[in-house]
Amino acid sequence: MDRADQVRVNPEKLREAIMRPNARLLKLDGLNPVFDNQGDLAWGAAYEASPDNDLLLLGVDGDTPCFAELNGGGNSGPASDPRLWQALGALSPDQAAVYATARSLVDWHARHKFCAQCGKPTSSRKGGWARQCDKDDGGCGAEHFPRTDPVAIMLSECEGKVLLGRQPMFPHKRFSALAGFIEPGESIEGGVKRELWEEAGIKVRDVQYVASQPWPFPSSLMMACTSITDDPKLTLDEEEIEEAHWFSLDEVKASMNGDPDAPFIAPPPFAIAYNLLVHWLDGQDS
Amino acid sequence: MDRADQVRVNPEKLREAIMRPNARLLKLDGLNPVFDNQGDLAWGAAYEASPDNDLLLLGVDGDTPCFAELNGGGNSGPASDPRLWQALGALSPDQAAVYATARSLVDWHARHKFCAQCGKPTSSRKGGWARQCDKDDGGCGAEHFPRTDPVAIMLSECEGKVLLGRQPMFPHKRFSALAGFIEPGESIEGGVKRELWEEAGIKVRDVQYVASQPWPFPSSLMMACTSITDDPKLTLDEEEIEEAHWFSLDEVKASMNGDPDAPFIAPPPFAIAYNLLVHWLDGQDS
Repeated sequence: MDRADQVRVNPEKLREAIMRPNARLLKLDGLNPVFDNQGDLAWGAAYEASPDNDLLLLGVDGDTPCFAELNGGGNSGPASDPRLWQALGALSPDQAAVYATARSLVDWHARHKFCAQCGKPTSSRKGGWARQCDKDDGGCGAEHFPRTDPVAIMLSECEGKVLLGRQPMFPHKRFSALAGFIEPGESIEGGVKRELWEEAGIKVRDVQYVASQPWPFPSSLMMACTSITDDPKLTLDEEEIEEAHWFSLDEVKASMNGDPDAPFIAPPPFAIAYNLLVHWLDGQDS
Repeated sequence: MDRADQVRVNPEKLREAIMRPNARLLKLDGLNPVFDNQGDLAWGAAYEASPDNDLLLLGVDGDTPCFAELNGGGNSGPASDPRLWQALGALSPDQAAVYATARSLVDWHARHKFCAQCGKPTSSRKGGWARQCDKDDGGCGAEHFPRTDPVAIMLSECEGKVLLGRQPMFPHKRFSALAGFIEPGESIEGGVKRELWEEAGIKVRDVQYVASQPWPFPSSLMMACTSITDDPKLTLDEEEIEEAHWFSLDEVKASMNGDPDAPFIAPPPFAIAYNLLVHWLDGQDS
């Protein structure tokens, strides 16, 4: 799907896209996805949208404009609902990206109805890719754009073992890579070093970027990295990390294979932490 | 400098840090840095801060708490002022990170005095690392965090040449790597492909992450990537890119060396685009 930024910023092209008879509307239940009988994302027609809601231009697929309705978000249940995760995991990467975009943007609009600069109401612009504080309504005229929060998710290796931890909210026995937001004034590599120091009390070196993935809960960009530690002594930040251990190659393999005797339950395959562990295992075997 | 997140979130430790006689205050002129006689960042004492302004905890350096004043930002001149860039380029990476953090946060507070969710006033919390909408003042109680916008900055290579372009606002003859914000629902690699398609009309493959750098104008995380193109035909988005060309190894070398006959003026050494070009040249020589 082409994100069609030249349509977003052109009110005439945007109107033409909305009016096109083949224009589609992503079905959403609040922020949650709706699936068709094949387990794919369900679509309706753009004209089915409520006239009270603005439309978000997700993009143009061939000659089909694709929209989502800025429905206010509403009750969506917890992002940690395992059924939601399972259904998302079954989507193709392209469909997962379409849903991630829609969920992040619908939620952003719902939580940004007012201008952070002057407190006056804002309204959707550019096909849902901006909000504008209206000078005619006494506002300051500021334009606001959706936010995407960069998050580092990282492994550290020491003496052939890898560090995994669990947050208090994780399902039983689940361990995963540690993660944290990159702060203003930091590089990705600096954020990885700080997070592993704050959360696990370890000093790491040789931070290497591996891969990235959007994560729409609510709007993160996950950036997966590896690193090396010389001293394995852990000092946990118990507010953030309930438990953390160094796991051996065989322990990680058993967990990734779903062995019932494995020491932990691995993150699900569509989470970038899973791919980070696959990357680490590949590096150990070579 | 330790960012000391455990001090930010503990009001007692934070008060103790502010009251410590050795606590320092980063000198700022609005958003701009102030330099001492050695060209380093200038510092005063924390008690010199205006009692009307909240303080931002930058971190703790040894046993010295370091703050900046949330001074409202004010007139700062254009971020593209070459004198500012030159002075920043002379700072050590650690000092540049301290200034980047301060500039991004002071500016964020100045532009986020109100709750985006309900429009009521917010106030600084957690040593300047959050703003809270106050329920006692009729607000919704939402907590807001500083934003960091991930930006891809990228080269593409075709037949041994590299693509560089210029934005209308660039200084005379300056060419640099193309760049753009990563959108919600995108990976870094997906953003690189979309931006090069939108801005230059080229299809790229084999996107590789190289390095990252914070860029406080106002609050970006620059993520530098390379990519490969098979078809060099360019179609420019003239709103964004005034001119773009494929440059040979010798042309890039001459420009990086400051040769007066070089076809363009290279980005300055502290910009990540410069390091991206160094990385590309290194790869060509090997």
